[in-house]
Amino acid sequence: MGPHPAVAAIRLAVRRVLHDVLTETTNENRTDAHGTPPAPLVLVACSGGADSMALASALAFEARKLSVRAGGITVDHGLQDGSDLRAAEVVARLREMNLDPVESVAVRVGREGGPEAAARDARYAALDEAADRLGAAAVLLGHTRDDQAETVLLGLARGSGIRSLSGMAAVSGAAGRYRRPFLALDRQTARKACLVQSIPVWDDPHNTDPAYTRSRLRHEGLPALEKALGKGVVEALARTAQLSRDDADALDSWAAAADSSVRDEAGQLECAKLYGLPPAVRRRVLRRAVIAEGAPAGSLFARHIEEVDRLITSWRGQGAINLPGRVEARRQGGRLVIRQG
Amino acid sequence: MGPHPAVAAIRLAVRRVLHDVLTETTNENRTDAHGTPPAPLVLVACSGGADSMALASALAFEARKLSVRAGGITVDHGLQDGSDLRAAEVVARLREMNLDPVESVAVRVGREGGPEAAARDARYAALDEAADRLGAAAVLLGHTRDDQAETVLLGLARGSGIRSLSGMAAVSGAAGRYRRPFLALDRQTARKACLVQSIPVWDDPHNTDPAYTRSRLRHEGLPALEKALGKGVVEALARTAQLSRDDADALDSWAAAADSSVRDEAGQLECAKLYGLPPAVRRRVLRRAVIAEGAPAGSLFARHIEEVDRLITSWRGQGAINLPGRVEARRQGGRLVIRQG
Repeated sequence: MGPHPAVAAIRLAVRRVLHDVLTETTNENRTDAHGTPPAPLVLVACSGGADSMALASALAFEARKLSVRAGGITVDHGLQDGSDLRAAEVVARLREMNLDPVESVAVRVGREGGPEAAARDARYAALDEAADRLGAAAVLLGHTRDDQAETVLLGLARGSGIRSLSGMAAVSGAAGRYRRPFLALDRQTARKACLVQSIPVWDDPHNTDPAYTRSRLRHEGLPALEKALGKGVVEALARTAQLSRDDADALDSWAAAADSSVRDEAGQLECAKLYGLPPAVRRRVLRRAVIAEGAPAGSLFARHIEEVDRLITSWRGQGAINLPGRVEARRQGGRLVIRQG
Repeated sequence: MGPHPAVAAIRLAVRRVLHDVLTETTNENRTDAHGTPPAPLVLVACSGGADSMALASALAFEARKLSVRAGGITVDHGLQDGSDLRAAEVVARLREMNLDPVESVAVRVGREGGPEAAARDARYAALDEAADRLGAAAVLLGHTRDDQAETVLLGLARGSGIRSLSGMAAVSGAAGRYRRPFLALDRQTARKACLVQSIPVWDDPHNTDPAYTRSRLRHEGLPALEKALGKGVVEALARTAQLSRDDADALDSWAAAADSSVRDEAGQLECAKLYGLPPAVRRRVLRRAVIAEGAPAGSLFARHIEEVDRLITSWRGQGAINLPGRVEARRQGGRLVIRQG
């Protein structure tokens, strides 16, 4: 008798990703003193919650069958009393699964960008540092299709276009370090896999705290949307993420290619040529140009670019447009001049 | 003292659209026997609800100041007892506003595509017929930013990509006949404009009937989403519609241009060349090709195109793919052969 379907599903998802990692590290042709490639180290980032505990269990199981070393990292965000004890408990559980090395890394969470963004920034900095230090080939993250759906809705609320609808990538980070094997699996499957394997899991109180946007979305927003639109909403949102990502990539490549075709010999943007581009491409060319002059991408919103675009499409002698990062855009003699002041 | 801000807002929105219509009809250079162009007829499609009654009032006001004749059409869907009396009442109210001609058109709603789609199809067929018969230059529709937000969420639930996120167009139909002046106005402004002008409005019981998806979305889904994500959600969804529409248009034009570059002299699709396109463009080229061979666009889903795409990206000798409309796609000698059986 094979494993429970939920366990089979999480293992298959991890197996596919490990195969990708093995293929890529083999292609790099690294060998040890004996001429054989060392087994790559794959880490799981584990909070102790059901998703990442399921991921750890599947990594432990699959790594034994492949030429992969499996380790784990848990990040102690220090945001709750006893978080250090919690982290120690996660370390113990990962060691029981025979992961090695296993580490707990304590971080200090700042305040920039709000509590969720600050915690995320601190977490990824710690994971990057650990992965570098341990020479890991990959770090697995337990995000599920449900997390993806929530991320798409959070992006939708920004109203800043299809890039913000594209959610989390299956492969991301420097050299594709971060992998998300569960992006096509639902949260329920991960929970079930823990249950049938008798893996104790921790429910982060933040996940049900209505002070957090994502928590409100998970427990109120998404269920109401499912009630109105039907049960397929989570899957539809996840599919939207993938399609939007591909679309945004294609349009970015078009804008990059168009950039040189709309400049004069001196490298200045020509308004008449910009006018001839499709609006979606022109706005991306403008956004690239404004960022290249020093505007911080994170502070540059759709409305900024629309205002710059009106210098091209609705020219009536308007003055310079002030943009984030003390960048200004003005139209001058048929050229669009973008400069940091 | 000028009009109430809500009334000023609806009038400005209509004025802008009438200017567009006048500019376009003047450019067509039609003249009457005396060599002067006839005043174009602009119709309002009016259900008697707040949005379209506000629209009718603004059209009546602005048309008097411009060289435009204003008329109105109300469609009696025959779905409720007394709907004929309701339609007669709407006709009377539009005539009180001095709209002329004003007509009530009775339709029979079929069942195809569900009750909402069937009612919509019957309504647009009746509006098209009336506009043709009366020689109207434009038909104004009362859809607001809130309707747009709902439409984006309905599209999101289909999970079929950014075209379905692009909502309703400000200008649509044959020769740009349909115009939606209120697409950037909120529903509240239209209601307020009726209230302060003492215009009685009718609340369609369908709008609050939870049997209808849009009604559930309006009264439960969207409010819950706003509670989770904040008050800007409706605006963000409407902005997403516009950005997605521009993006989808640009990618469609890319796919149309790419089509000839991926075919051999015999006009057959070459797999190697298709492989070189960005995935977002390749999938659109494939979709166009499948539709050109007779597959009905409405039955062709993202998963169908993904399966055809795997003949290009994950070729392992798989057989023919069966598609809607008895179309099949197979890979043969490095070519993608798409044919109706």
